[in-house]
Amino acid sequence: MTDIHDLTRKLQRQSDSKIIMYVGDGLGGLPLEPGGKTELETASTPHLDELAKRSSLGRSIPVLPGIAPGSGPGHLGLFGYDPLKYDIGRGVLEALGIDFDLGPNDVAIRGNFCTIDGDGNISDRRAGRIGSDIGAKLCEKLDTIEIPGVEVFVHHVKEYRLVIVFRQEGLGGDVDDTDPQRTGVPPLAPHGNDEASAKTAEVCAEFLRQAAEVLKDDAPANLLTMRGIAKMPPIPRFEEVYGTKAAAIAVYPMYRGLARLVGMDILDAGQTLDDQMACLEKHWNDYDFFFVHFKYTDSTGEDGNFDAKVQRTEELDSAIPKMNALKPDVLIVTGDHSTPAKMKAHSGHAVPTLLASDICRFDGSQTFGESACRVGELGQFEAKYLMLYALAHAGRLEKYGA
Amino acid sequence: MTDIHDLTRKLQRQSDSKIIMYVGDGLGGLPLEPGGKTELETASTPHLDELAKRSSLGRSIPVLPGIAPGSGPGHLGLFGYDPLKYDIGRGVLEALGIDFDLGPNDVAIRGNFCTIDGDGNISDRRAGRIGSDIGAKLCEKLDTIEIPGVEVFVHHVKEYRLVIVFRQEGLGGDVDDTDPQRTGVPPLAPHGNDEASAKTAEVCAEFLRQAAEVLKDDAPANLLTMRGIAKMPPIPRFEEVYGTKAAAIAVYPMYRGLARLVGMDILDAGQTLDDQMACLEKHWNDYDFFFVHFKYTDSTGEDGNFDAKVQRTEELDSAIPKMNALKPDVLIVTGDHSTPAKMKAHSGHAVPTLLASDICRFDGSQTFGESACRVGELGQFEAKYLMLYALAHAGRLEKYGA
Repeated sequence: MTDIHDLTRKLQRQSDSKIIMYVGDGLGGLPLEPGGKTELETASTPHLDELAKRSSLGRSIPVLPGIAPGSGPGHLGLFGYDPLKYDIGRGVLEALGIDFDLGPNDVAIRGNFCTIDGDGNISDRRAGRIGSDIGAKLCEKLDTIEIPGVEVFVHHVKEYRLVIVFRQEGLGGDVDDTDPQRTGVPPLAPHGNDEASAKTAEVCAEFLRQAAEVLKDDAPANLLTMRGIAKMPPIPRFEEVYGTKAAAIAVYPMYRGLARLVGMDILDAGQTLDDQMACLEKHWNDYDFFFVHFKYTDSTGEDGNFDAKVQRTEELDSAIPKMNALKPDVLIVTGDHSTPAKMKAHSGHAVPTLLASDICRFDGSQTFGESACRVGELGQFEAKYLMLYALAHAGRLEKYGA
Repeated sequence: MTDIHDLTRKLQRQSDSKIIMYVGDGLGGLPLEPGGKTELETASTPHLDELAKRSSLGRSIPVLPGIAPGSGPGHLGLFGYDPLKYDIGRGVLEALGIDFDLGPNDVAIRGNFCTIDGDGNISDRRAGRIGSDIGAKLCEKLDTIEIPGVEVFVHHVKEYRLVIVFRQEGLGGDVDDTDPQRTGVPPLAPHGNDEASAKTAEVCAEFLRQAAEVLKDDAPANLLTMRGIAKMPPIPRFEEVYGTKAAAIAVYPMYRGLARLVGMDILDAGQTLDDQMACLEKHWNDYDFFFVHFKYTDSTGEDGNFDAKVQRTEELDSAIPKMNALKPDVLIVTGDHSTPAKMKAHSGHAVPTLLASDICRFDGSQTFGESACRVGELGQFEAKYLMLYALAHAGRLEKYGA
């Protein structure tokens, strides 16, 4: 199997064209009853429908048929990186999500404060869901831990969640979680699955030994578990593989982190969709490719709130005129996966996708929704190929072969 | 490319959900004339049509576009095993089909009794299609053959067909057929294509030498040819890769053999579809996954009998209410390949597929047929991915990545 990027490196063509990839997180949905409409089909989306009339529609398979992806693989696919090839550990995602500048010698870990009882067993895996103010203070205490030869960083994320980074050459990134996933038992000892990771496991064990001392009077948060212990995989940069200067406009840190992982510049997106559009306008002349992320189609789906997801989809729609006004050569609207309110979770259903460009083949669609996308021009494709569609429709790919 | 089973091993989720995969052998068809209907579309299938209204439809490519598979690769694909990776020899299929318990040191061979004339040439490749009573007796005689260091098993299959198994460590499985595929010439000498298979070829030659002696007075069945000389490939077990306890309910030995090959339990299916449904009901609480096989959509197609295939398709339909009554979480109806009556053969056309589940995305289908499947929600997919769809819709897969 040819690597997609071997191909795009070879076929890059210089162009002044501009691409917007507008991602409604968890965009795809399900009807509540047979014969019913999905969230996207229920929503009033006049701008997207108008766009659909001069677009090619289709649907993407985030990973493989049926497979529900997390945010990491979901977005890597959209960016054209095979999510089965590039495996991003949870710790790396968390670190990227708080704007931590991870380097190649860093091992990133997601930590969860937990409660340890008198017998050394975990009695609460989330330390009574302590508030963010307490969590932040405890992280400051943990950040004083010193391990010879290792740079240690401790950053608070939210409530009981934190990120720990160990920086030292030669540390491996394949260490099992210490969270036993249940209460009434002690945390697991860190275990490395290769020689370099055994070194990491020793560092983890030493950190946890000191942490128990530092936190001994801080019940319910008197210890922590470690999860998703991982290093950043070597991943080629977006600009190198596609020849486009790319920027991310995302409100939530996780998505900024994913964009940073592939080498996009991170712009100040503000807090609202209006802020994001202002940012897009401001930087329009500075980049070739813009990744614009909208979170709330996912979070409402995760909440199982069909009506709220409908409403958020209408909000997603409302930004289209501002993007159109910039006259992008390619405007893509898609999702990183489906999050049907009916399932309250990410799902493996195909993701509705729209691509508007002057050279797209119109497919007669009158609306943007799962049903229209099912018979659209782009067909059903693995998400990792979406960037090829984007570049091709932006005139940014040479012919392959003579 | 990631192996599908590396992924399913990692993503397995425990669940009480139950899956039925109901396979109409050779289900896909062709209209006799342009503008006409296929066998499936011609048949009156009220239960399947009703099911289609609350299903996702699609079509599977058994191997690669256009490739017509035999029963082996056709079923391996449905079970989620890449048929291009797992190559099952004909001898192995025949042995599995008579419930022979093949081991890793066994070489299995399909034998055909034939007639040799006075010049040593084959005059009839099927020995005048001798009756099963005669074939069985001749196999008993052949079973007395002894080869030093090798365990020899000879089993009758049907009429002029038999299975021979040689058991010895170090025998290879890559030996050419001795059947020259025409009359008026002598059988070919066994030829092994590697060192281990050269040893097997010697064993074959010795067996054939003794067989000529044993059968010398048994014309028209005075010799045999050997085909599909092969060993069982190492293949991971269904339960190990998917975490489901699986059973096969198949009337024909070949399909029981294929299910046994991937480690399914083989239930007593009886002789009729009613028997099979009784078996399904009886064992409903014992398994998570049921493979139910219906042969006659294929055999009538092979006969070139369009009307008979229509009638058998209606019989296939008649079992749906009994399956529905068990309330499976996922009910899949599909075929291992197409067998259009018009072609009297397996073909490479896409195979109509239906998946009913509470979390399938309905696609507005009103009937189950090739045309409806062409625009269905599952799209067009390689058969090896069908198990991912099945597991996902049964809630048996965790999310991939964070």
